[in-house]
This record gives sequence, structure tokens and C-alpha cells, in this order.
Amino acid sequence: LAEALAYLNGRRVPASQACLPVYDSGVVLGAAVTEQTRTFCKQLYRLEEHLERFLDSVRCLRIDLPIGKDELAGVSRELVAHNAALLPDGGELGLIQFATPGPYAGYAGMSLAAAAAGPTICVHTFPLPFARWAAAMRHGAHLITPPTRHVPPRCYDPKIKARSRLHFYLAEQEARLVDPKAWALLLDLDGNVAEGAGANFLIVKGGVIESPPPTNILPGVSKATVMELAARLGIAFQERTLQVYDVEAADEAFLTSTPYCLVPVTRVNGRAIGDGRPGRIYHRLLEAWSKAVDVDIQRQILDAERR
Amino acid sequence: LAEALAYLNGRRVPASQACLPVYDSGVVLGAAVTEQTRTFCKQLYRLEEHLERFLDSVRCLRIDLPIGKDELAGVSRELVAHNAALLPDGGELGLIQFATPGPYAGYAGMSLAAAAAGPTICVHTFPLPFARWAAAMRHGAHLITPPTRHVPPRCYDPKIKARSRLHFYLAEQEARLVDPKAWALLLDLDGNVAEGAGANFLIVKGGVIESPPPTNILPGVSKATVMELAARLGIAFQERTLQVYDVEAADEAFLTSTPYCLVPVTRVNGRAIGDGRPGRIYHRLLEAWSKAVDVDIQRQILDAERR
Amino acid sequence: LAEALAYLNGRRVPASQACLPVYDSGVVLGAAVTEQTRTFCKQLYRLEEHLERFLDSVRCLRIDLPIGKDELAGVSRELVAHNAALLPDGGELGLIQFATPGPYAGYAGMSLAAAAAGPTICVHTFPLPFARWAAAMRHGAHLITPPTRHVPPRCYDPKIKARSRLHFYLAEQEARLVDPKAWALLLDLDGNVAEGAGANFLIVKGGVIESPPPTNILPGVSKATVMELAARLGIAFQERTLQVYDVEAADEAFLTSTPYCLVPVTRVNGRAIGDGRPGRIYHRLLEAWSKAVDVDIQRQILDAERR
Amino acid sequence: LAEALAYLNGRRVPASQACLPVYDSGVVLGAAVTEQTRTFCKQLYRLEEHLERFLDSVRCLRIDLPIGKDELAGVSRELVAHNAALLPDGGELGLIQFATPGPYAGYAGMSLAAAAAGPTICVHTFPLPFARWAAAMRHGAHLITPPTRHVPPRCYDPKIKARSRLHFYLAEQEARLVDPKAWALLLDLDGNVAEGAGANFLIVKGGVIESPPPTNILPGVSKATVMELAARLGIAFQERTLQVYDVEAADEAFLTSTPYCLVPVTRVNGRAIGDGRPGRIYHRLLEAWSKAVDVDIQRQILDAERR
Amino acid sequence: LAEALAYLNGRRVPASQACLPVYDSGVVLGAAVTEQTRTFCKQLYRLEEHLERFLDSVRCLRIDLPIGKDELAGVSRELVAHNAALLPDGGELGLIQFATPGPYAGYAGMSLAAAAAGPTICVHTFPLPFARWAAAMRHGAHLITPPTRHVPPRCYDPKIKARSRLHFYLAEQEARLVDPKAWALLLDLDGNVAEGAGANFLIVKGGVIESPPPTNILPGVSKATVMELAARLGIAFQERTLQVYDVEAADEAFLTSTPYCLVPVTRVNGRAIGDGRPGRIYHRLLEAWSKAVDVDIQRQILDAERR
Amino acid sequence: LAEALAYLNGRRVPASQACLPVYDSGVVLGAAVTEQTRTFCKQLYRLEEHLERFLDSVRCLRIDLPIGKDELAGVSRELVAHNAALLPDGGELGLIQFATPGPYAGYAGMSLAAAAAGPTICVHTFPLPFARWAAAMRHGAHLITPPTRHVPPRCYDPKIKARSRLHFYLAEQEARLVDPKAWALLLDLDGNVAEGAGANFLIVKGGVIESPPPTNILPGVSKATVMELAARLGIAFQERTLQVYDVEAADEAFLTSTPYCLVPVTRVNGRAIGDGRPGRIYHRLLEAWSKAVDVDIQRQILDAERR
Repeated sequence: LAEALAYLNGRRVPASQACLPVYDSGVVLGAAVTEQTRTFCKQLYRLEEHLERFLDSVRCLRIDLPIGKDELAGVSRELVAHNAALLPDGGELGLIQFATPGPYAGYAGMSLAAAAAGPTICVHTFPLPFARWAAAMRHGAHLITPPTRHVPPRCYDPKIKARSRLHFYLAEQEARLVDPKAWALLLDLDGNVAEGAGANFLIVKGGVIESPPPTNILPGVSKATVMELAARLGIAFQERTLQVYDVEAADEAFLTSTPYCLVPVTRVNGRAIGDGRPGRIYHRLLEAWSKAVDVDIQRQILDAERR
Repeated sequence: LAEALAYLNGRRVPASQACLPVYDSGVVLGAAVTEQTRTFCKQLYRLEEHLERFLDSVRCLRIDLPIGKDELAGVSRELVAHNAALLPDGGELGLIQFATPGPYAGYAGMSLAAAAAGPTICVHTFPLPFARWAAAMRHGAHLITPPTRHVPPRCYDPKIKARSRLHFYLAEQEARLVDPKAWALLLDLDGNVAEGAGANFLIVKGGVIESPPPTNILPGVSKATVMELAARLGIAFQERTLQVYDVEAADEAFLTSTPYCLVPVTRVNGRAIGDGRPGRIYHRLLEAWSKAVDVDIQRQILDAERR
Repeated sequence: LAEALAYLNGRRVPASQACLPVYDSGVVLGAAVTEQTRTFCKQLYRLEEHLERFLDSVRCLRIDLPIGKDELAGVSRELVAHNAALLPDGGELGLIQFATPGPYAGYAGMSLAAAAAGPTICVHTFPLPFARWAAAMRHGAHLITPPTRHVPPRCYDPKIKARSRLHFYLAEQEARLVDPKAWALLLDLDGNVAEGAGANFLIVKGGVIESPPPTNILPGVSKATVMELAARLGIAFQERTLQVYDVEAADEAFLTSTPYCLVPVTRVNGRAIGDGRPGRIYHRLLEAWSKAVDVDIQRQILDAERR
Repeated sequence: LAEALAYLNGRRVPASQACLPVYDSGVVLGAAVTEQTRTFCKQLYRLEEHLERFLDSVRCLRIDLPIGKDELAGVSRELVAHNAALLPDGGELGLIQFATPGPYAGYAGMSLAAAAAGPTICVHTFPLPFARWAAAMRHGAHLITPPTRHVPPRCYDPKIKARSRLHFYLAEQEARLVDPKAWALLLDLDGNVAEGAGANFLIVKGGVIESPPPTNILPGVSKATVMELAARLGIAFQERTLQVYDVEAADEAFLTSTPYCLVPVTRVNGRAIGDGRPGRIYHRLLEAWSKAVDVDIQRQILDAERR
Repeated sequence: LAEALAYLNGRRVPASQACLPVYDSGVVLGAAVTEQTRTFCKQLYRLEEHLERFLDSVRCLRIDLPIGKDELAGVSRELVAHNAALLPDGGELGLIQFATPGPYAGYAGMSLAAAAAGPTICVHTFPLPFARWAAAMRHGAHLITPPTRHVPPRCYDPKIKARSRLHFYLAEQEARLVDPKAWALLLDLDGNVAEGAGANFLIVKGGVIESPPPTNILPGVSKATVMELAARLGIAFQERTLQVYDVEAADEAFLTSTPYCLVPVTRVNGRAIGDGRPGRIYHRLLEAWSKAVDVDIQRQILDAERR
Repeated sequence: LAEALAYLNGRRVPASQACLPVYDSGVVLGAAVTEQTRTFCKQLYRLEEHLERFLDSVRCLRIDLPIGKDELAGVSRELVAHNAALLPDGGELGLIQFATPGPYAGYAGMSLAAAAAGPTICVHTFPLPFARWAAAMRHGAHLITPPTRHVPPRCYDPKIKARSRLHFYLAEQEARLVDPKAWALLLDLDGNVAEGAGANFLIVKGGVIESPPPTNILPGVSKATVMELAARLGIAFQERTLQVYDVEAADEAFLTSTPYCLVPVTRVNGRAIGDGRPGRIYHRLLEAWSKAVDVDIQRQILDAERR
């Protein structure tokens, strides 16, 4: 049977062989940056913007990448072309790029190969797990603000899409203590709303979409898409410091992230937001997005439940 | 030729095959905990204490490890017995355990194998890179306090020996901007001295060894060893909030960490500490440690320069 | 039928008539200080120490109390003598003193009576609700660290036993989201362990009882009792900054507060502490306390389950 | 003689009987939320907006109120209709709603009645004490920034109109140490300007009205009124972080709150603001407000001096 | 030979005699405020705005200055008229005003003269040291973010142009540890970008000039000039929280300060900003500024290299 | 008439000629470090310790002092020998050393002399102003905690005896707003007690002398003297975080500083400390100090009132 391909340090390899030696800095220190793109109708969406942000992240770690943006784009498209063909009907791909500084110097003696190695660069894909999001898509997600706080930019900037995200992992575990289906909404050190564990968070109040300021959240490509769609639909968008009170008092709320685009949020810390159902502006945005990519985003996800 | 062995998820594998799939949570999120032990005369030193701390870290991530402490100890000793035989003369091993929650759920569709997988657990060794430390051992390290700050316990606790350590990586890069041979000394968010990037930091002032409080540093096994040696030698030891001023005004300073035990620090931010040379108490501690393990720790490291 | 008595502004009144006008500063602003004592065998325990702390709190609010410590003690004992006679078998009393600055000036026109009024001072009792604590006493309490943080001394000092404790109320609600039987353990703004919502918190590690530093917690009379008992039993006691990690890694933990003395804590944020059962030092302390007051404290509480 | 009426837990009672049992959570913990409306010409002003904010506050405490917004409005108007008739000439009423979770569970045994009780809900009125504000209205208030800081949203959000306001009480006392007629201007934990003890604070600089950001202040209905009036008068309004320097360098400043609408501020920490007299924009706003409610707000207050 | 004149406490003195007694508060405590203006074609530029800010600073220290704004302006122009005549060809003057509270009371017995003295007020000039800036003007400055942080407004507000600037001195020393030609860019306590040691800092991103918010930086007259020039050129200008990431990801960056107007910044912490060369918007602003003052600002500075 | 002598940059000058050019970094930036010693019976007290701390401060500013400790000691003693002879009966001298990096580079063109200059070093004396302290010595000082906060070590460390002390100046002004005779007690950014404006602060509680921790206060030579005297008298001494509550609840309090040794503190923010009079331990310490220096310290100060 055919197997998906991945790209690792200049070579195409079967996906099952895409792995990192245990002495790689990405494994040892979580010193890695990454990017995630998805397909619509098996075509990569906004690849260019994702790659630009990737190169910004790469530069922040001072990684001297042996492959340029155009080549990365080519590899990415090539993998998608090959791997999408293996998808089941209605499937789409997520595409990951990541890079690390390469072997960790402290284990230098571990491997002769390592001595000569430069940075690690990998591209791989995975089928978007629509079924994971169907319940939240239908009824709205329940967000919990866990005690674990977002890492502040003074330590490493959340604007870098880095992989030292243990706090995301812990926050999600804490959220699930309250509700096994809950998602985490991380607060920053001052208790202000930051972002989900891998998603930007937005509320709607009085007809205006509101986002936490860009100071310590990922500058999300999906968030930028929401801003464009809002502008097109004549919906105001503003950035301001948000706190749990603002979320509780919001008319609507949603998470936005590359793999699922927009998931409605209907509860926070056990309390309903607005009337407790996905809101009107959420639906308008999702509809506009669906049109823009010529895919019914919601149906694609909900259909996965039936399979 | 014989190759070193590693342990990965229940199997013994050649070290060159010890690698993680790119969808492991340890690779994707840096969600991993680890431990590091070393040999003296090819025997593991304080393995028990390292394993206890390892299990504390494992519990903090709520990883349900399929292997107990005794079995881990057995595997560790077995690997050392095998791999130490491959060392060059005078060589010693570092031994690593690490564990992750296993495959990252977000990429779940990537691999059928992943669906069934539990946590990842790995044990491997590496030859201690003595030559890397020889210059610092001889003349003393130069510490720089970089702008990147230590992650506070509110995000994830430095007392967990976790692998989301991008801040260590960034701090070391910033230190090397000032001096390519410098080591980083991380400050916490309040500007107080925390620890090195993988080492506890201690100063000596008025005959007393002083450590930052245990609040947001690793509870180092080597630091505990220093405390025991100090008690044996009749040298006072106390914990208190330290700031850069205290380091600059110290009589001596040193870093302590499992692989190299004790490295003297003779400069901080370009200024000499004390008379700019490894100090008296440093030498007494190192001598006592050498006796305790029946290895001349300094000579072992310095000898590596000649090879 | 006989009714319990209360003391309110110089008068003895039936307890059901002990109430505050809605224009009292204690109602309008939560501007009130309080104290709580309990009986053992229907005799007040450590009344003197409670009254001293009460007068410290009174002074911090600059309330000019029209009644001295001795008179307050007399009133307190008088109420207990009267009200204890009404208790069911095996019952004990809690005794409350509280004071407010009196009528809120902003509503001054509301009442002619108010214009002339000075501070409000009230003493009342209530039967100790043993049944509420029985389950925790038997199996140990489950503590949750909620997102709501303790008010810092810069706003108003937790060392004042004040009644502006909305954060206690919110913290308990958040704790119950996770587990309806859970109790809240409040963290301070830096994420360090502070205290329970009305109780001091202590852990045991390596045979030593450890308390958060006195900086931003109530200087509990019960905590002082634990310190005395520990000294008598030869158990070491120290104060240091504690974090959630320390609680998770503790051997034992307990809450101490006037009404129930000592309740064991066996879980924190869903994880067992030690072996998940009330610990050895907990039992030694409780036994010593029971002896000191000639009441089997645990049995008295557990007996309430059967009634 | 006729007495004012109040509403308490479903009953109309004479105002002098509107009181809370000492075991109510509002008394014990300051766990209460409130709202304040006033009359102009004996008609309630912006009642709807106040009730909406009240229900937001109620929801934040998870109080399950047994009375809806319309019924609350009806009760409020009914009380005003009755009580306003008792006012002296030129008088106006303040109207208070407040709610608490009801009896404090810790004192549960105190009262059989309490066992069955739900939340406490009360509505009452008081004659606006115009004479208290006359001097400030005429010459301008003197603001002092006391050492006591505003409670941050991480503890409980100032956007909730809650009654745990001991910090307000302490701040006013500290302000009066400097000047017995001074009012307090609370700073937040970062030293930024927050709000008065029961009033929003605004400055004018270069023709623009400036407010601290809404992050940690009450979202005042009067502040919203100022914003509307400013828009109508063509005066720009903006929110930004303000510090004591900005207040000292302002052209004008004022406090805005429901009972007195707008009071000019002419000194801060002993220094004159602008030319030390109520400013031009202050007067324009007050005039517009007076027109909108068909009452000369300033004269109504100043007239009270003569009585 | 003719000597430059200075103004000191009401007298004109030769510049070499402009000195402060060692018991002046400005020397003892750094309790002093200052202002700096420069000439273009030997005429003072924006003197009025500088004097207004000076008087704001003076008021913040509660100094009762014995000389008014008009007289200060007259003295300033008089000194420039006299001293500019002594300049070499192509030279320009910097003009300093500074004031202190006068003699330090703690040393009161030191001098009979001091007992009677009021505040110290001084005006003096100095030739602008163009040669110091030529290299940065040509190639762009290299900025380093040192560990020393900007003093927060809670201590003393950076909006006051005060002389207690030891942090500026330390920050510049730390920057030069990394690169002897580097300039310091101070971060605030939260790690956000504040200002240079005597200059405002601006970046350009996506065609928009961005400044840190005015909260804790000097309200620079030169920054205000840039805002005016930008408005005239149709370039957008906005204030927002900036972090090191934003500087690294900027298209352009520059420092603006009275003596040199605008210096391009082409590197930060060792990394190039944009393409590592002075940018397009920088050049447009400098050209517009040059036109406005009828001096080729860049050439004037670069010419100094040749002399 | 004879005039006191001062030492300035290698020369002995009449005190009235000890002055700094306006382009000195000490004047321009407050970039200066200092030390203060006093005489008892016209002999310098603990000169050695003061000079050691001075050299620590000098090193922190990286000033390359052209004069060693012994020569500084010699100059200091020489000045005292000469100047003490000019004192009135019963007078004593304060002795100041201070150093700056020399001319400020930004004004480099101002003076040919400056171009060649190195650091500035000055030693001068002043008669101790006993009369200033007499009232506080007799009745106790009144301390006010002003809104201005102490500069944190992240900006510049208070352990350096530096002259950028504008916050001291502002704090004292704010204290005098409350009470013209009040002294300032600075809090740190967290609201914890730091130090007076030029003095260490100590309290007594339960027979123990307590000091704020050494983290962000000057390591006072007088405080060290108090520690020695306390040890000699068998009085316990400990360092712990103190807050305003602790000061209000203290039994005694005092300030300690070189010029006046020990001044009792009897009020804080308007409230009496203890019984509002200088305390027993204060008197024991002062008596022991007086014996140690063979001068009745209190009488010497009180006598100054009569003159």
C-alpha cells in the first residue's frame, strides 16, 4: 500500500520513518519552531503567509536554515500532492513544517553523524481529525481558565511559533479536570485573557469582534483571516485587554485556528456565554469563510461524525 | 563494530535507532520530562535520587508510566554495563531517562501505530564531553545575565525537570553575543538570580556558600551533594534571594551540575569575581567530591584537552 | 422555647434579632473586622489571643471601639454560658465578634438614628456544624487551586481578619466546579500558596511541617497552636515559599482553623498527596491537640455523621 | 408619621426594618453585589442600564435570583413613588438594589429559618445627601492617591459592582490624613490611575476627555453618560493608561458618579490642576447634563448648603 | 580669547565657571530636572515646547523657580547669540536648562551661603558633537537590550525629564559589553520596549510608524516632530506595546532625539533589522525634517567626520 | 578666618571651592556613588567599612578610580583633622566621599579640560546638624509611607550607595504633605517595607529586632552596628519581609543611619506604634552604642536644641 511521504533534512522519506534522534535539540530542549497549514479541497491555504511567519520564527532562534522559502513551498506542495491522494473521501490535510538547531551539543559524543549535522528541518502532513471537533462545532466549546499561565514574552515570545509548549499541555489537563470535554483558555501573568492552547480567542460584544492585544499571543493567520472577513462583512474589529469578566459578559465567543478555522465557544468556567448557543456573527464569519474557500467548513467537520 | 544500546518503549535498540516519531508530544509540544545521571569509574552515581526526582516530574505531567522505578534502575544499569565497555580510556557515561505523554492527539490520524500507543519512555547514554568543560574548569567560566528570563512556576515549575527549555537555548545564545565562551546565568522575572541553563549556581561570601532559594530552580542532585560535602567540611550553607550585585560582590562562585560536578565561575558580565581565579572553597569542595567518588574530577576533565 | 442570645451595640438581644441595618458600612462596603473562637466542653478556647488579634484588626480600620477587651471577654463568656445550655448533646459553640465603622456616610439621610450612631459591635454564637466536616475528616479534603487569587496586602492586608472576602467566596465556587466536595486553596498574585478560604494551610515534607511565610496570610491562632504542639512533640516547623509543586510533592498536608482544628488534605488538583490518606504527623498533632483540650476532636466530628 | 418603604426578599417593609441577619453572606464575607440609581425630579434615571449591570454582577457571583429584571424595575419604581413623597422640597432619592447568596453555610446551625433561605435581595432608597457635595461642587475636590491600591481583577473584578470594598474605606481614610476634605483616587498595582472610591475619574488634556482604560474600573453608567454628552457636544473622548503625572499635567479633571453626576477636581496631592478652578469642559458637560434631565444639577446641590 | 557664557542663579558667568557646589541637591541626590534644545543655523528650534515641558518637570519636583518662562527664553536666546559666534564653521549649539531644589538640607551646616539659597537654575550651551553620531548616521546604530531596566513611573515618572538617570548610564555600559559601538534600548519591568538612553525609539512595520505607548517614556519633542512630519507626508503613526520580537521583525527602526534629530537603527541584539540598512521611511522623514529647518541634517553630521 | 578644606580630584581646596562643572556625569545623570562617615569625639567611626562599601559601589559603575583605599583613608583623616578644629564646641563632622565617571560624553565639546579628564573623586566634610534631629530624638519620628516607591534592583540596585535618588526626594515631599515633620518610609514595588530616605528601618516585635531582608535596601554600616550591639546585649535579630501592618503592630521601631545613629519612630501613617513613645530596646541599643563610642549620643543631639 502507498504510504504518505515526509521531508526530512533534504530527503523524502515514508512518513513512518520521519523521526528525530533523541539527541536533537528539538527533543532535548523543545528548541524548535513550527508552522501549520491546511488544505481546502486538497490545496494549501495561505501557504505564503505561514511560511513568512515560519521564517520569522526561524530567525528568532538564529537557526541558519539550509532551504529557502520558495524551496520550502515547493516541498510542501509536493508532499500535499502526493499525500492527499491517499486521503479518504472528504478528507483534508494538515501540513507541518518545523525546524530545530540540530543536535544538542551537550550530547555531542553520542553520534559521529551528529557532529557534522546542521539544523533539522522537516515537513510532514496528517489527515485533519474532523471528528475531534464535531461536538464543539455543533454545540460550542466549553472553555476553562486553568491556573497554569501563559509564558510571558520576557521568557520566550508567544509570537514565535515555538514548540516549548509544556504550559499548553498542562493547561489542557487542568481544563479537563473540570470538564473532560473542556478546552483551555490561557490567562497571562496578570490574569488577562491570552489565547487557547493552539488557537486565538475572540469575543463579540455589542456587534464588535474583540481580540486580546497582540502583545503576548500568536499573530494567527486565521485571526488575520477573521479580520479580513469581518472587514468585508462590515463588522467592526478591535484589540483590547480582555479579562474573564469580559468573556462571561460577551455576546459570543470563538476560537480560531488553522485546522478547524472557527469553533464557537458557548460556555466559560461553567457559565453560558450569551444564550449559550453559537452566535449570529460566528455564523456569518463561518459562512463567509466557507464561501471564500468554496468548502462548507462546518458540514465538512460535522460529516466526520457520521463516519 | 559494537554499537551502544538504548532503551525505547520496552525494547533495546542500537543507539542510532533511538528516535522519536515527529508526532510525539515530546517533539510537538516539548511535553517531556527527563533526568540525567553520570558514571564515576563507569558506575552510576546517585541513580536512586535521580529516579525519584524523575518520578516526581512524571507525576506532574500526569504521565502513567508503564515501568516502575526498580525496572528503570535495572534498565539504566544494564545500558551502562553494555555501553561503558565501548568508551575510550578514561571515559565516562552520561545517562538520560526521558518520558513523554506519547503521540500528540492533534495529529492522531497520522499513524495507525500511534492510535494505540501509550507514553514514550526512553533511556540512553552518551560519552561525557570532558573537553567541552576543560577551559572553564581551568580558568573559570564567564557568566552573562541575558535579557531572556527564566520561566516562572506559574507557567510550568522549574522544579520539574522538563524539556520545554527554549529559554535556556535563547539565554545561551544571548550570552555568547557578549563572549563566545560565556555561559548564561538566568534571572527570574523579578531580576533575581535563578540558575544556569542546566546547572545550579552558588556563590561564596564571607566563608558561607549561598544559593538562590529553591522556589524557582531545579532541586539539583549535585546541589544536594554540595550541601552534604559542605556540611562534612564544616562550611556554612544558606539559601537567600541573590541579585547580580551579590554575584559581583561575591568572593567565589560556581556552577554545579551532574555531568561536570563543579565548574568555577570567575567573571560575571565582564567583571572579575573576587580575584578572578577559582577560589579556595571551590577547591575544597571539588577535592572532597573527588575523594568521595575516588576520581580526580578536575584531572579527568583537563586530561581530555590533551586527547 | 429558650432562644440563644447575641450582643449588639451594648444590648443583649435574641439571636434572631441580631441584624444589621442595610446602611451599615459592614453591609455597604464589607468594611468590617471579625474574630472567631470555639468552645471545647462548652468553654471558650484561647479567647484572649483571639481578642488581641481582634483589637489589632480594629485598630487597622481606625475604628474607635466603645468597649474594651475585658468587657468583650465578659460578654463573650456570658453569651456562651447562656447559649451552650441550649446545645444538643455533644454540641459545641462557635463564637463570633465583629465590628464595623457604623453607618455608611453616603446614605446618611436614610435614618435619623444613624446620624448619631458610632461603630457597630456584635458578638454572637452558632452551633459548630460538625457534620459539614466529617467526610473531609475521615478521608481527607480535596484542594483545588482556583484562578481567583488572594487579595495582596497592598490592597488590604490578609493579616487583618476582615470581611471583604468576596475572593474567598469566588474561589470556593471555582473549586466546586472541579469537584463539588473540593475546598479552595488560594494562590497569591505570584502563584505561591497562600491559605484556604478561612483556614491556614500546612504541608509535611521529610518530617518537617512547612507553612507559607506569614507575609500574606492570616496569623492564625490555630496555626500557632500547631506550632506549639509540634514543638512539644519534637517535630520541626518552618516557613518558606510554597508552590503547587511543593503541595503535590508533599508527604502530608492539612488545613487548620478554629472551628475544626485540623482537617487532613489528601488530594490537590485531582492528584493524591503522599499515599492519598491522612498522614502520620497529622494524626500525632490531632491526638496531642485532643489531649490538650480533653476532647477527642476527630470523634466529636465523626459522631455528627450519625445523628 | 409615614415611613419610607424598602423591599426585602419579596416583602415590603418599613425602611427601619430593612436589615440583614448577622449570618448573611453579605455580612460575613462581603459577598454581595449592588447597584445605585438616582432620581431627577423624583423619576429614576437610566434604571434599565443599572439593572442590566446589576444582573451581570449577579451572574458573576452565580446567585440564582428569584426575581427578574422587569419585576425588579417595578419594585424600584414602586418604592420611589412611595418614598419620594416623603422627601423635603428639592430632594431627590438614591435607590439601591443589592443581592447576596443568602445565609453563610459556615454558620448554618444558627437559624432554622436560614436553612431554607435562598439568596438575599433588597431594594431601598435614601435621600441624596446634597450638602455633602456642595463644597466640592463649588471649589473642586482635592484628590489624594493613597498607598492602598485597587483590588486587581485577578482577585475579584472591579467591573463587578461588588461590596467587598474595604480598600475603598481604607483609601478614603488615608486621603483624609493629608486633608480632611480630600477624596481618594485609587491607583492599581502598577501605580496607574484606576478610579475614585465609588466614582469614575476623568481628565481633560488638550481639549480631549481622557479616561483610564476599562480594564480595572467600574463600567460606570455616569461615565457612559459623559461619553454620550461629549459626543453630542463634539468633545473628543479617549481611553488610555493614566498616571499621576498625567493628572498633575491635566487641564481639568472630574469625578463622575450616579448620585452627584459630576464633581470637579481642582487639586491632586496638594497641587493645583490647571488653574486650580473647575474647568470649561466640566461646565459644558454639567450644563448639557442638566438640560438632558431638566434639572440644574449644580444649583440643586449648592442649594442644599443653605438649608 | 572669548569664552562661552552660561547663566547660573541670575548671573552670567564664563562657561568654565558654571559649576555646582557639592552640597547642591542636584549633586547629592540627582534631584534635578532638565531640558535640551538645539540650534539650526544657530537659531533655537522649538524652544517654546521645550520650556513648557521644563516647567512641567519643575512643578513635579515642587521647585519654586524664581524665573518665568519668558525670562528663561530670553536668557536662552541671549546665551545662544553670544556663544554661537564662537562656534567653528558649520557648528551648532545644544542648549541646556536645568534646575534643582538648591542646597541639600542634610549638609546644611556646610556653608553659610547655602542657608539662604533657593533653587538652583542654570542655562548653558555646548557645541553639538556631530562626529559622535556620524558612523551611526551613515550605517545605522546597533541597539542592545541590556539587563538593566527602565525606572517605572511608580518610582519617578520617565515623563519628567529628570537627572536621576543612573540606569541610563548602566544600560549603556552593558550595551557596550556586547559591542563597543552599540547603543542601549531600555526595556521596562515587563520587558516591553521603552526608550533609548536619551532618545525615543520608533519602528516601521508595514508602512506604519510605531511607537511604544507614552506611559513610561519621555514625551519627546523630537518624537512629536516626527509625528507632525509623518502626518504631513501621509505616513500612519500609532502607539502600541512593543517587544523585542517586534523590533526584530520591524522593517525599519530609528532613534529620535533633539541633538541629532533621527538616527537609523539597523541592528538589534546582533541581528539585522529589515535588510540591515537605513530604510525608506527614515530617509523621507529626515529629508522632510531637513527641509523644515533648511539644513541638510545628515550632511551636517557626516561632514563632521572629515574635520 | 580659616576655612574648611575639601579634596577634589587630587587637590586640596577650600570647601567653598568644592564644586562640579555642569558637564560632570554626576550632575548630568546622577551617575555617582557616595559614602558617608561621621566622627565621634572628632575621630572617624568605622571608616574602613565605609570605604570598602564605597569601593564596591565604585566597581558597580565600572569607575576606574585613580586613588586607592589607603590613600582615600589618609585624605579623609587629614580633612577631618583640619576641619574638626573649626567646629564649635560639641560639634562633630560628617565626611562624604563621592565619585563619578567624570565629564559626560554628550557635552564633550563643552570644555577642552574635560576631554582629558578621568573620573571625578571628591571628599568633603560638614558639621553634623544635630538640631535637625532633636525633636525626633526626643519624641520619636512620624513615618509616612508615600505613594512613590523604592527603585528596584532591576533598575539600579539600592545596595549600591548611588546618588540617583530622586525617589527619596519625592517621597520626603509626599510625607510632608501629611505632616510637615514626617519622615518617609519607602515601600518597594510589591508594597513591602524597604528603607527610609537615607536610613535603614527596624522594628521590634516580641523582643526581637526585625529588619526587611537585605534584598533591596542599603547594606547599612549602622544597621550592622545595631546587629553587633544586639548580639552583645542578647537581643535576637532577624530579617523578614515586613509590611505596613507589621509596622503598625510593632512594639517599637527606629531608623538607623550614620549621622544620627538611631532615631526612635513612634508613629506611622498617623497611628501610634506601641504606646507611642521611644521603646525599651531602642534605649538599650542607644545606651550601648553611646558606651561603645564614649559619647552620649542622645544628649549630644538634644543639647543642640539649646544652642
